[in-house]
Amino acid sequence: MAYLNDHYLKLQAGYLFPEIARRVREFCDANPEAAKRLIRCGIGDVTEPLPPAVIAAMHHAVDELSVRETFRGYGHEQGLESLRERITEHDYRARGIEIAPDEIFISEGSKSDCGYILDILGDRNRIAITDPVYPVYVDTNVMVGHTGPAGEAGRYEGITYLPCRPANDFVPELPSEQVDIIYLCFPNNPTGAVASREQLSGWVEYAREHESIILFDAAYEAYISDPAIPHSIYEIPGALECAVEFRSFSKNGGFTGVRCGFTVMPKTLMARASDGRKLPLHSLWHRRWSTKANSVSYPVQRGAEAIYTDAGQEQVRQLIDHYMGNARILREAVEGAGLKVYGGVNAPYIWVETPSGLTSWQMFDRMLNELNVVITPGSGFGACGEGFFRISAFNSRENAEEVGRRLAKL
Amino acid sequence: MAYLNDHYLKLQAGYLFPEIARRVREFCDANPEAAKRLIRCGIGDVTEPLPPAVIAAMHHAVDELSVRETFRGYGHEQGLESLRERITEHDYRARGIEIAPDEIFISEGSKSDCGYILDILGDRNRIAITDPVYPVYVDTNVMVGHTGPAGEAGRYEGITYLPCRPANDFVPELPSEQVDIIYLCFPNNPTGAVASREQLSGWVEYAREHESIILFDAAYEAYISDPAIPHSIYEIPGALECAVEFRSFSKNGGFTGVRCGFTVMPKTLMARASDGRKLPLHSLWHRRWSTKANSVSYPVQRGAEAIYTDAGQEQVRQLIDHYMGNARILREAVEGAGLKVYGGVNAPYIWVETPSGLTSWQMFDRMLNELNVVITPGSGFGACGEGFFRISAFNSRENAEEVGRRLAKL
Repeated sequence: MAYLNDHYLKLQAGYLFPEIARRVREFCDANPEAAKRLIRCGIGDVTEPLPPAVIAAMHHAVDELSVRETFRGYGHEQGLESLRERITEHDYRARGIEIAPDEIFISEGSKSDCGYILDILGDRNRIAITDPVYPVYVDTNVMVGHTGPAGEAGRYEGITYLPCRPANDFVPELPSEQVDIIYLCFPNNPTGAVASREQLSGWVEYAREHESIILFDAAYEAYISDPAIPHSIYEIPGALECAVEFRSFSKNGGFTGVRCGFTVMPKTLMARASDGRKLPLHSLWHRRWSTKANSVSYPVQRGAEAIYTDAGQEQVRQLIDHYMGNARILREAVEGAGLKVYGGVNAPYIWVETPSGLTSWQMFDRMLNELNVVITPGSGFGACGEGFFRISAFNSRENAEEVGRRLAKL
Repeated sequence: MAYLNDHYLKLQAGYLFPEIARRVREFCDANPEAAKRLIRCGIGDVTEPLPPAVIAAMHHAVDELSVRETFRGYGHEQGLESLRERITEHDYRARGIEIAPDEIFISEGSKSDCGYILDILGDRNRIAITDPVYPVYVDTNVMVGHTGPAGEAGRYEGITYLPCRPANDFVPELPSEQVDIIYLCFPNNPTGAVASREQLSGWVEYAREHESIILFDAAYEAYISDPAIPHSIYEIPGALECAVEFRSFSKNGGFTGVRCGFTVMPKTLMARASDGRKLPLHSLWHRRWSTKANSVSYPVQRGAEAIYTDAGQEQVRQLIDHYMGNARILREAVEGAGLKVYGGVNAPYIWVETPSGLTSWQMFDRMLNELNVVITPGSGFGACGEGFFRISAFNSRENAEEVGRRLAKL
């Protein structure tokens, strides 16, 4: 008799974004005229075309696959060495951080790796997750049985939630209890907050003292405009001994549909076996990759590599400027509507308090019905997100301006 | 204190193919002249360029991503609907099997899904795996803790091994004990064996009687030349209630470096929760995909779709004919050398008994040193593979002919 994984049955409702998609579909079916005016500022999906340097590199790679002399089959299990070298040079050495190419693992996106990392971690770790948070961290822990059932406000037993609120500038305080695995994401999705060097240093110090591991999601690092804010956790001394870093090409190169990212697994990062031995996680992660995957699509990796050329860097800069221009427009419009607003300065997300006691989903429905604008309800990101909503700056300029005008009517 | 997943420490040596790559690297470093003559018939990696229809479709898709009007970001969590429709039409309806597009999940390759499927299955299932076998099935079960440590001949406690030997034509007998999850792969990697309709019917009957689930890997179905052999497990009545099927574009369209495949998860497939309820696995699998991934690269999916056009089908036929022409040459050469040979008729793999009591790795070293030909040692696929080796027909015609000539000297 075959048994299923019962932990999946603990999961609450649908994953956030499919649930939003479902409500939007229902609205559009019922209101075909309003549907034409609909502007989506919900899911953080890019709208602008790929950088020309990426397009050229992908075409070239596809052509390579069209003739026997340059055809390539299975690639290196960690990804193209040339891509990994560019990453170590540009994303790390340029900031004074020494990461070796074999500490980089090219992935089909940071979302996947944020879940897969649990494959190599043990079952008895105490998990700490910020609240509000990108739902993937919580849900993947539920799936592998790191939690009990969900209780009040959808919070799962067994997880240590780290509240992020206006009072702490959305950067959580260090926990008073021992936690073993700590998810941090800065610039933050959904709040748009960033963590200072001092704040990150506090977390690295905590992790080293408690032999904890920080899972650092830096998918939005390209949006940092303040030169004092670290782009990588490894800018903090000691982080190479206590942190894994996840990066994405989705939000800098516009790869949400192309799919590529990478994970940094330093060889100096250790965890305990049950018998108390400290062992490097790198060999487990390498074994996981070589057993469960066959690297990332060749043309995709060549496209990612093109991001690191001079032309690619300039084109990515223009994309970021475009989206951050939208963020400014939206931020000002929300402030103009008299709402309290956070984020949108070092991140493409604007985090807004709902007016007059509305819940997040009530605000979602109101924005959908009255303004025909799709936002993301804050409560979808966790209990501390209740009373907030997220506006994504990923849009055309025209749409951002139109949303700005509609917000003025709120 | 962060703990690692101890089950990884049970894994034996390296994953097979990286280990072969290591030995070949060492040989080439030590013998630079012989290295120039080296021909690889080890890993089952395609050598011929992508079909022109696929190349054209990928170029077109890359161009779509270069302008805002046709740019696409995150795709449908199960993959492009048009691709899934073509699959249901061509791979299933044409064989009288009704599969709905939402029962198809586009993946980055069947290797990954063969591992990921364990995410949604429970921990108390009794696992049955053929021996010899593609190492991924065993290793992924070790990783999640479904086994004890490895003992004699690298076999893990807790797995029910199903021996495949010349005596049973490499199709295992039904087990006398209850098993809950059964891995079957036909045409088989590594033996090149196929299972008849009657043999598969026996397994489906067993699974229905015992409420077991068959995980059916059909990655090599395109190589079947005998019209009586089923291409899909769903050709067997009742299989929609007891089987998951994994498919790949690696070996028909040459996608080993492009990465795409799919998994069929019928909505009629149920498994038990711990409390005894029977629930469909489809919703768990869907939840897994929407939480852990963001579908497969858009240009890659468009490339896969082109395989189903008339031109794509004709070009794939030519690729298969090419590799099966190699298989015939190699098979005849091995027989000519006086060795006992299996497979190579409905599959691109030739399975050979080692001569005069050599072990598989001894034969590997001999072929590498004397003939400068890389093969795969049978024992790398399991205890029952000892005394055999696998020759892959994935090569240029020139190389296949040259290997044939060298084998004559054995």
